[in-house]
Amino acid sequence: MSAEIICVGTELLLGDIVNTNVQFLAKELANLGIPHYYQTVVGDNPTRLREVIEIASKRASILIFTGGLGPTPDDLTTETIAQCFNTPLIEKVEIIEDIENKFQARGRKMNDNNRKQALIPKGATILPNPTGTAPGIIWEPVTNLTMMTFPGVPSEMKRMWAETAVPHLKSQGWGQEIIFSRMLRFRGIGESALATKVNHLFDLTNPTVAPYASLGEVRLRISAKTTSEAEANTLIEPVAQEIIKIAGLDYFGEDDDTIAQVVGALLRAKSQTVAVAESCTGGGLGAMLTDISGSSDYFWGGVIAYDNRIKMSLLDVSQEALEAHGAVSDMVAQQMALGVKKRLGSDWGISITGIAGPGGGTEIKPVGLVYIGIASPDGQVEGIECTFGDRSREIIRYLSSCTALDQLRRKLTRK
Amino acid sequence: MSAEIICVGTELLLGDIVNTNVQFLAKELANLGIPHYYQTVVGDNPTRLREVIEIASKRASILIFTGGLGPTPDDLTTETIAQCFNTPLIEKVEIIEDIENKFQARGRKMNDNNRKQALIPKGATILPNPTGTAPGIIWEPVTNLTMMTFPGVPSEMKRMWAETAVPHLKSQGWGQEIIFSRMLRFRGIGESALATKVNHLFDLTNPTVAPYASLGEVRLRISAKTTSEAEANTLIEPVAQEIIKIAGLDYFGEDDDTIAQVVGALLRAKSQTVAVAESCTGGGLGAMLTDISGSSDYFWGGVIAYDNRIKMSLLDVSQEALEAHGAVSDMVAQQMALGVKKRLGSDWGISITGIAGPGGGTEIKPVGLVYIGIASPDGQVEGIECTFGDRSREIIRYLSSCTALDQLRRKLTRK
Repeated sequence: MSAEIICVGTELLLGDIVNTNVQFLAKELANLGIPHYYQTVVGDNPTRLREVIEIASKRASILIFTGGLGPTPDDLTTETIAQCFNTPLIEKVEIIEDIENKFQARGRKMNDNNRKQALIPKGATILPNPTGTAPGIIWEPVTNLTMMTFPGVPSEMKRMWAETAVPHLKSQGWGQEIIFSRMLRFRGIGESALATKVNHLFDLTNPTVAPYASLGEVRLRISAKTTSEAEANTLIEPVAQEIIKIAGLDYFGEDDDTIAQVVGALLRAKSQTVAVAESCTGGGLGAMLTDISGSSDYFWGGVIAYDNRIKMSLLDVSQEALEAHGAVSDMVAQQMALGVKKRLGSDWGISITGIAGPGGGTEIKPVGLVYIGIASPDGQVEGIECTFGDRSREIIRYLSSCTALDQLRRKLTRK
Repeated sequence: MSAEIICVGTELLLGDIVNTNVQFLAKELANLGIPHYYQTVVGDNPTRLREVIEIASKRASILIFTGGLGPTPDDLTTETIAQCFNTPLIEKVEIIEDIENKFQARGRKMNDNNRKQALIPKGATILPNPTGTAPGIIWEPVTNLTMMTFPGVPSEMKRMWAETAVPHLKSQGWGQEIIFSRMLRFRGIGESALATKVNHLFDLTNPTVAPYASLGEVRLRISAKTTSEAEANTLIEPVAQEIIKIAGLDYFGEDDDTIAQVVGALLRAKSQTVAVAESCTGGGLGAMLTDISGSSDYFWGGVIAYDNRIKMSLLDVSQEALEAHGAVSDMVAQQMALGVKKRLGSDWGISITGIAGPGGGTEIKPVGLVYIGIASPDGQVEGIECTFGDRSREIIRYLSSCTALDQLRRKLTRK
């Protein structure tokens, strides 16, 4: 018993779009414990699609189709599947009514082309599409062979999958054991260093622990295969707690947490405010902080001091510091952080000054050298040197903002 | 004569990665005029891979493989292909030498596992991999059937494709006519409005003109199918010129141009400078401007005035304006733009104040209402009202920054 995914659409053969649908479905099948061994892409061509269906029908017991359900003449998935099993198409009144209602809600009238979308093979069940006009089908044309069709629009397909296809598969006995995961997130530590610390946990079998590295961040995924979320939590929780204890301050959040969210929550809990002084990031740190809705509770604003004159006039950076140490220096970062805190009247001031490249680097101050300043509510200030290496301007700027927020997080957590 | 793409890798079946390789190859085949009708993904399983090869060999004359060329036991593409045609593998000394040299350059020693990568079917040609250790093959095991293999690492695959595979395909008579494209880019006009203006050009056959819409932008792709780039330019240029003339100020750039680059080039040409005053974008406009290397030539900095106190203290926005019109108003946008221009001493000042949501909207001032202010070198100031609708915070902030830059571009172009 295995599934197979068949994606229909000439646009995939032309390379006009990336096939994200197949990745989504592959992940979902893996989570449901349904094996699948083949994925096929074929154009809007009934002869070739038919050949693909014939091959797949011999190999698998669940065929999942995406694409080719629309109202135009080149949308041929449903009728080709029906032809493969010599089954007539019948018009479903409830689909016509549903399409008419959807058109009406948008103040438009249903087109005659759309009638085509109401035709499904005799004996098939409608797989409802709550947001679009193209419904799918669930159909068992012969014993032990189920067909499920979805439109190519990812948002419609995903909702239909979750709301109807998954419950159907579960009712057939699939997905009784599901994989539940919790992702723990870390900053300021490399993948191999963290892996060494939690090495003994990689041998666990349920839950399993696996490391992932991404830009400026390491994650550990704890996955349990169980029948219920409660049981999964019971398995995952002690392992998570052990890892969090081992990782200490390097652990910053879970799942979809962003560093800006975590910092924001800490500031809000303390009723403290922050202001930013940015040179090489040019506003990116402020943008990251204000990406969070409600950030006005703790973020007051900042100064983008790209030019040294602005560093002096708006942030009270001294000409002496600029001349003696240069704009990219620990001293200037500290003065910027203090300056913005004072000028804006916030509790905390964070600053960034660095060389984002690709130009502007020297032997002593290479591209990727960045200083972060943090001025605390007690008037103390600290400068932190970061070396992000000769990477792209985009990456250096992104890492600079993330690291500045992470340094503030550490101070907010400690105190 | 057609090609077929076969991607090998269990990670694709698990949905761990998006298959961008197949999109790249599909687009390349389309540009070379090589038809391809099927794409297949199969796991690291020799029996299933063999079945896939047997099916594809009957349908196509060029089989393109990605993945499964590495040194580990589950990398099986080369040996499975050889088995399909009962051909022995032979060790290629030049591959061993190449791998040894690459390891040496990284200060490491070649692993015994890597010897496997030097085995290719008897009669096959090496498809060199300049950057990685896994070479591919070009092999014609039987007449009118060519196999080409590539590693799954996208950067290695792409370089091998461009440097060796494409010249080989051209030597076989493919790709004599190639599609050359030029993308014209527009802002401040919708897709259908632009399409109406240039409607008569959509009937052209060589070059063709096709519209594309993306967030805040419309593009027209002009594509010519010819044997040389020079000939393509001769076909494309008059059509491009006609469109540019029709579109007027809505045309802002081509191909990879960004609005920040275009604005930067205009400012540099005039030796003028700009400063920003940001409320709802929180630094995003500054970040967009400074995304361009060398932007310090024309960008001085700015003030992130998220809190109204900062609008007053650093941008000289009057308490009267805030009380009478509110922070999100034409008047406050104008005062912010004038304020930042004066405070920072730049030629231009641009400001953004708006409601990015999801909270904070009212009936009179809904989410998506944004005011942009532009203060000109002559001391004039203009406020522009934008209604981006009830979209996501991220999109409203992005469109606000893009629109502010586009408004500045229009003024810089006019004067």
